[in-house]
This record gives sequence, C-alpha cells and structure tokens, in this order.
Amino acid sequence: ADTTTASDAIHRRFNPLTNSWVLCSPHRTKRPWLGQNEKSNDAPAVEYDPKCFLCPRNQRSGIPVANPDYTSTFTFTNDFPALTFDEPAKAAPSSIESSIESTLLQSHTAHGTCKVICYSPNHSLTLAEMDNAAIATVIEAWVNVEAKIATDHPEVKYVQVFENKGAVMGCSNPHGHNQVWATDYIPHEPKSELSSLVAFKKSHANKCLLCSYSTLESEKTSRLVYENASFLVLVPYWAVWPFETMILSKTHVSSLAALDSAEKLLLADAIRNITTRYDNLFETSFPYSMGIHGAPVNAAAEAGGEEEEYVAAAHLHMHFYPPLLRSATVKKFLVGYEMLGEAQRDLTAEMAAERLRAVDGNLHYKRK
Amino acid sequence: ADTTTASDAIHRRFNPLTNSWVLCSPHRTKRPWLGQNEKSNDAPAVEYDPKCFLCPRNQRSGIPVANPDYTSTFTFTNDFPALTFDEPAKAAPSSIESSIESTLLQSHTAHGTCKVICYSPNHSLTLAEMDNAAIATVIEAWVNVEAKIATDHPEVKYVQVFENKGAVMGCSNPHGHNQVWATDYIPHEPKSELSSLVAFKKSHANKCLLCSYSTLESEKTSRLVYENASFLVLVPYWAVWPFETMILSKTHVSSLAALDSAEKLLLADAIRNITTRYDNLFETSFPYSMGIHGAPVNAAAEAGGEEEEYVAAAHLHMHFYPPLLRSATVKKFLVGYEMLGEAQRDLTAEMAAERLRAVDGNLHYKRK
Ligand SMILES: O=P(O)(O)O[C@H]1O[C@H](CO)[C@@H](O)[C@H](O)[C@H]1O
Ligand SMILES: O=P(O)(O)O[C@H]1O[C@H](CO)[C@@H](O)[C@H](O)[C@H]1O
Repeated sequence: ADTTTASDAIHRRFNPLTNSWVLCSPHRTKRPWLGQNEKSNDAPAVEYDPKCFLCPRNQRSGIPVANPDYTSTFTFTNDFPALTFDEPAKAAPSSIESSIESTLLQSHTAHGTCKVICYSPNHSLTLAEMDNAAIATVIEAWVNVEAKIATDHPEVKYVQVFENKGAVMGCSNPHGHNQVWATDYIPHEPKSELSSLVAFKKSHANKCLLCSYSTLESEKTSRLVYENASFLVLVPYWAVWPFETMILSKTHVSSLAALDSAEKLLLADAIRNITTRYDNLFETSFPYSMGIHGAPVNAAAEAGGEEEEYVAAAHLHMHFYPPLLRSATVKKFLVGYEMLGEAQRDLTAEMAAERLRAVDGNLHYKRK
Repeated sequence: ADTTTASDAIHRRFNPLTNSWVLCSPHRTKRPWLGQNEKSNDAPAVEYDPKCFLCPRNQRSGIPVANPDYTSTFTFTNDFPALTFDEPAKAAPSSIESSIESTLLQSHTAHGTCKVICYSPNHSLTLAEMDNAAIATVIEAWVNVEAKIATDHPEVKYVQVFENKGAVMGCSNPHGHNQVWATDYIPHEPKSELSSLVAFKKSHANKCLLCSYSTLESEKTSRLVYENASFLVLVPYWAVWPFETMILSKTHVSSLAALDSAEKLLLADAIRNITTRYDNLFETSFPYSMGIHGAPVNAAAEAGGEEEEYVAAAHLHMHFYPPLLRSATVKKFLVGYEMLGEAQRDLTAEMAAERLRAVDGNLHYKRK
C-alpha cells in the first residue's frame, strides 16, 4: 500500500476519515508560476493598534461597546454572528407536496452562537510567537467556552474551535484570535469523520481508526514532523493542502475537555512547534485555517443513540490547512479540477514532512 | 420544506447531489468588510499579446514549440500535465503487513491526460463576450477532445471539462481557455453525484433526481435566472458560493456528446447568458471556476456493472462556482468554519437569483 510514496509517480490516495481521494502529481512543482501573487502576510509590528477592534479598551465594530482592559485571553460573542439562539423555531413545513420535494428541498432552522477569543492583549502575537504556557492559557479558554455553551444551551450538539490566520485566509484582523461556532446539530465535516470512526470500530474489532493511524505513523516515521509525550505532528498520508498537518493525540482522548494540565501543556507545545516551523519555512507569518475535532457535546441525554456512539469513537485531533505552496506569496489554488473533479496536490506528503522536519521548531526566525 | 426560503432566518439546506449541507446566514451580508481586497479582474484589452503562451504563432512555455496560426479553437496537451499515460503500472503492493495498513494507507497509480482548449485566437475574448455560434464551436471542441481521448485510450473512465477564470481562481493566463483532464478512474466529485443519481432512481420508482429537480424549479421559479427551450440556468437550492449557478438540461441527456447541433447552440446560449449576467453584476470580468458533469466514458465494456448504472443515471449539467460576494474586489472566503465545520453562505439562493435576474443577460456592459 505504501509503495508509491517515495517516488515521483503520479498516484491517488484515499482519505479514510472523509472517504474522499486526492490526486498527487509531484512533478507539477516544476511548472513555472505566472499566476496571482499574494501579499506576504507579515504580522503587525505594533503591540497596540488604536484602530483595532480587538485591542484592550478599544471600541468594537458595529456595536457601542468598548473592550475591557484585558490582560490574558478575552472571549466575547461575535458582533456579526452566523448563528444565534434567537431564531424562531421554524413553522412545521406546510407546503410539502410530494416526497420528491421533501427530498430535494430540505432545510431546517439552525441555532447556535459564535464566539471570538483574543489570544492576548498584544496586537502582534500569533501562536507561533507565544510560549507554551501562554498557548496553554488559550487552550484553557477553548475548554471553558465550550463547557459554558454546552451547559447554558443543552440543545447545542457540537462546538467547533477554529482560526483563520492571514488575509489570504479571509481573516480581517491581524490581532491574534480565533473563533468558536456552536450549533444545535453536528456539522458536515465532523459528522463525516465521526461516522468513519464508528464504521472503522465496527469493522476492525472495536479498534480506533486514529489510534491505529497514530501507531502506524510512529512506525513509518516518513510523515512525522514532531512528537512529544502525548502528541504527534504529522503530514497525513492523504493531505490535500501542500503543507497540511494534523496534531494527533497518541492515546484515545475524545476532546480537549478530557486533557489534564500536563497534556494541555503538551498540546500547547505541539501547536507552538508546528506554527514556528510554518513561519520558519518561508520566513513569513504563515497563513492557515486550523480547527479542532473532538466529541459532540450534550450527547448523554440521548443514551444509546448515534450521538453516544460518536462520543465513544471521537479521537481528539487538530487540522492545519495552510495555502502556501512555493513561497510567502505563491499559494496553491484548489479550484476548477479540485472543485469539479477531486483534490489535487503538487508534492507528496512525505516531501512536505521532510521540508517541515528540516526547519527549526523552537526558535522563530524573527528571534534569530 | 421550502418555507424558510423567502425570509431572513438562519437555516441549513441539504445538497442531495453530494449529500452535504450548507449553513445559510442571510443577515451576515450586513457585516463590514475589513479583510483582503482582490485586484479587479478586468479582461485584457489587447487582441494579441506577444508574450502570451496561448496566442497564435507564439512560443509555448517550457517546450521548444510554437503555436500554429490558428483561427478558431486550438487544442493541445498541457505542457505541465497533472496526469500522463506514461506512468509505469505500479508494482503489486508488497509491503501490506495488516488489514489496518491496507485500509489506512491506500493508493493506486493514476493515468490520464490534460488538455488545454483556447477559445479563439483573440487574446481578449472570454465566453461572456463571444456569440452563440462561437461558443457552440467551443462546445464542439469539448465533444471532440472527449471522443478522441476515449477512443485512443480505452482505459479512460472520465473526462472532466473545466475552466478557471481570473487570477483569483488560480488562472495564470487571461487568454480565454479551459482545461480537460481525463483519468482512468471516475474522480471523487462526479462519482459522488453519480452515486446519488443512482440511489435516487432506486428509491423513487426509476425517476431521475435532476429531471425531477428541473421540473420542481420550473414550477417554483424563485431560483430561476434564465431558460431557453433546452436548458435552465438556476441558483441551486443548496448553492454554496454567493452567486453559484447550475445549467441544467431540461430533458434527460447524459452528456455533451448526446446533444444535437440545435441543442449545442442552446447550451451556448445559456452559457453566454449567465456569463454576461455575471460580468454585468459588478461590471467586471467575473471570475469563476466552472465545469461540466455528465456520463463516464468507455463504460460499455463492463456491461451490467456500476459504471453502466452511472451512464444510465447521468444527467448533463454545468456548475459555475464564482467567488465574488459584494463587489469586483470583495470575495467570499470558504475557510476555517467551511473547511472544518461545513459550508456557510451569507445570502440565500433566492436573493442571489433575484440579483442575477435583474441584470442584463444579452448586452455586455462593455458594449453599452
Ligand atoms: O493548470 P493551471 O491552470 O496551471 O493551474 C490551476 O488549475 C489547476 C486545476 O484546477 C489547479 O490544480 C492549480 O492549482 C491552478 O493554479
Ligand atoms: O468571521 P470572519 O472572520 O469575519 O469571516 C471569515 O471566517 C468565516 C468562517 O470561516 C467565513 O465564513 C468568512 O468568509 C471569512 O471571511
């Protein structure tokens, strides 16, 4: 199965978490690039920006409120949330004329909330430049916001923690922050992964797909980037983005909430290590979208159901999806063929892992 | 089922073609945009560019060949193809140590070819500014290239026609052109749609999902943008991109090859109409990725199998995925939540259809 990985051969790989495929054409990196160049994404140099909506004491956007004079992390509800709890429950569908219509025009009301978490009062700090203890404080904030939403809103089923970093990833404010969107349903991506984890358990004598995968990658080593006592950082065999990585818990932990303080520090260490490598790779503040996948919340209420199966099968991991391909300004476009056909990448997962291993994971290039 | 569509309510819609969901948060359009602005994508003003790799008589990129002095469309093999037929067949996997490894590290060699089709010798012509007859000539070229690949390479199973238009969609040359990638397997996206079409037939008394959908949308009208005797142009109920549209054959036609000359002209008319509306919407050369989905090729050889079912179920349609949201320079970013959670959009399909209906589909803004 693993025989094509070292070579230059054009091949296709399978993603067992989402049941999709990726076409891998390693020689395509030789092609000259005449397309769009991005602005490089250098983090702001100032520690305080009087115009920033996220800096302490400043006025927020759209609403007549000022931020507190916060000194650590700062969590608030997004001023333009994609989800709220105020939405009226939808009237029972009255116009379904046929089973065809109810199959082809399916919708339901969505309830939830959107939170923003500032990493620190310092406008210029990204995760890559924070120390393990400061990142552990951010992880603590994620755990707290997830717990509070789940307790206050028993209808919430899933809490998605994610960060868009860099203008090229749609981020509109360089002040280090991430988002948390909670919903009264499990969204498509985690649901598809959780279904795969449940199916694997059933067909593999109750084994966990990601525990098995973690063991396999520890043996193979070619896709490993970094590891500590609790976490692996690796380029998944089925990576789509050029320098896509995953942080994977070595043992079967279902969610952030299940980590003890020592493990939170180890997760912080893994996050610091990979984000530092990213910044060092092209000596730029490396853009990405990242997010955490773990167990659904509030599932206990429906004992014995699908959601309880999901909780038992969930295995904590983080995805990093960074767009850059060749330099600080040349990204990979996942466009025509990728949208209409299937994902396509220009270097193998093993080549990407090798390049990420070769850069420093401790000392950030700005400090050299 | 269709009761939320007119309102401002936050809701979720189901895509029966790909079995995925999209979160719809219409009020989000009110949020101020402080993020990245794109360069506007105006088409080149010159009819001939001596530096262009695609203009007639010019030198190509990377290889010592000059283009012919072509006068209509011009088809050639991509100089940096993601797929070739030269790839050696992979040695039988020898290192599979366990069923776990063969599940988690799956790959196979991929064979195929990548073609480029220039729309015309005129460097500045996009589909939006060509007339129906000229676009029908392009459709003819698509049919011919597909037929030739399928005949010359009986192992090819699918031929994907697509176009990346605009630098923001990863296109590196503004000379009007599209691509055709052929593979010895059916790629993920068409395969997932074909499976849905087959499943719908089985559960709905042999009816076609897209024939049924076409009838439903003709009745509802709120998502229609344009129609002629053979094709509907509509914003799908489950659209993800802000102004995503689909061109749908009204009758059950499986692929481009099955269209007669009159139907090809009608498809050309639908393409010209929607691309003209796109350009007129923000008075810019509207970027998009588009592609055609139809039946697999060379399926007859395996009579009675899955691929023959796909051929019978296939229903010709075109997807347009344009990134712009508010103006020529502000696009929608499908990033963090969309990658990690699920697709999210900021205006309803019906609002998008209304705006596209309101602009001219015949006279291009540059000619006004
Ligand atoms: O083949 P092109 O036009 O050079 O490249 C473009 O389209 C390809 C197919 O969608 C993508 O893989 C590339 O990322 C994109 O830049
Ligand atoms: O919420 P933000 O940061 O304003 O917006 C950003 O992230 C969202 C969630 O991934 C996306 O839907 C937006 O397109 C993007 O610009």
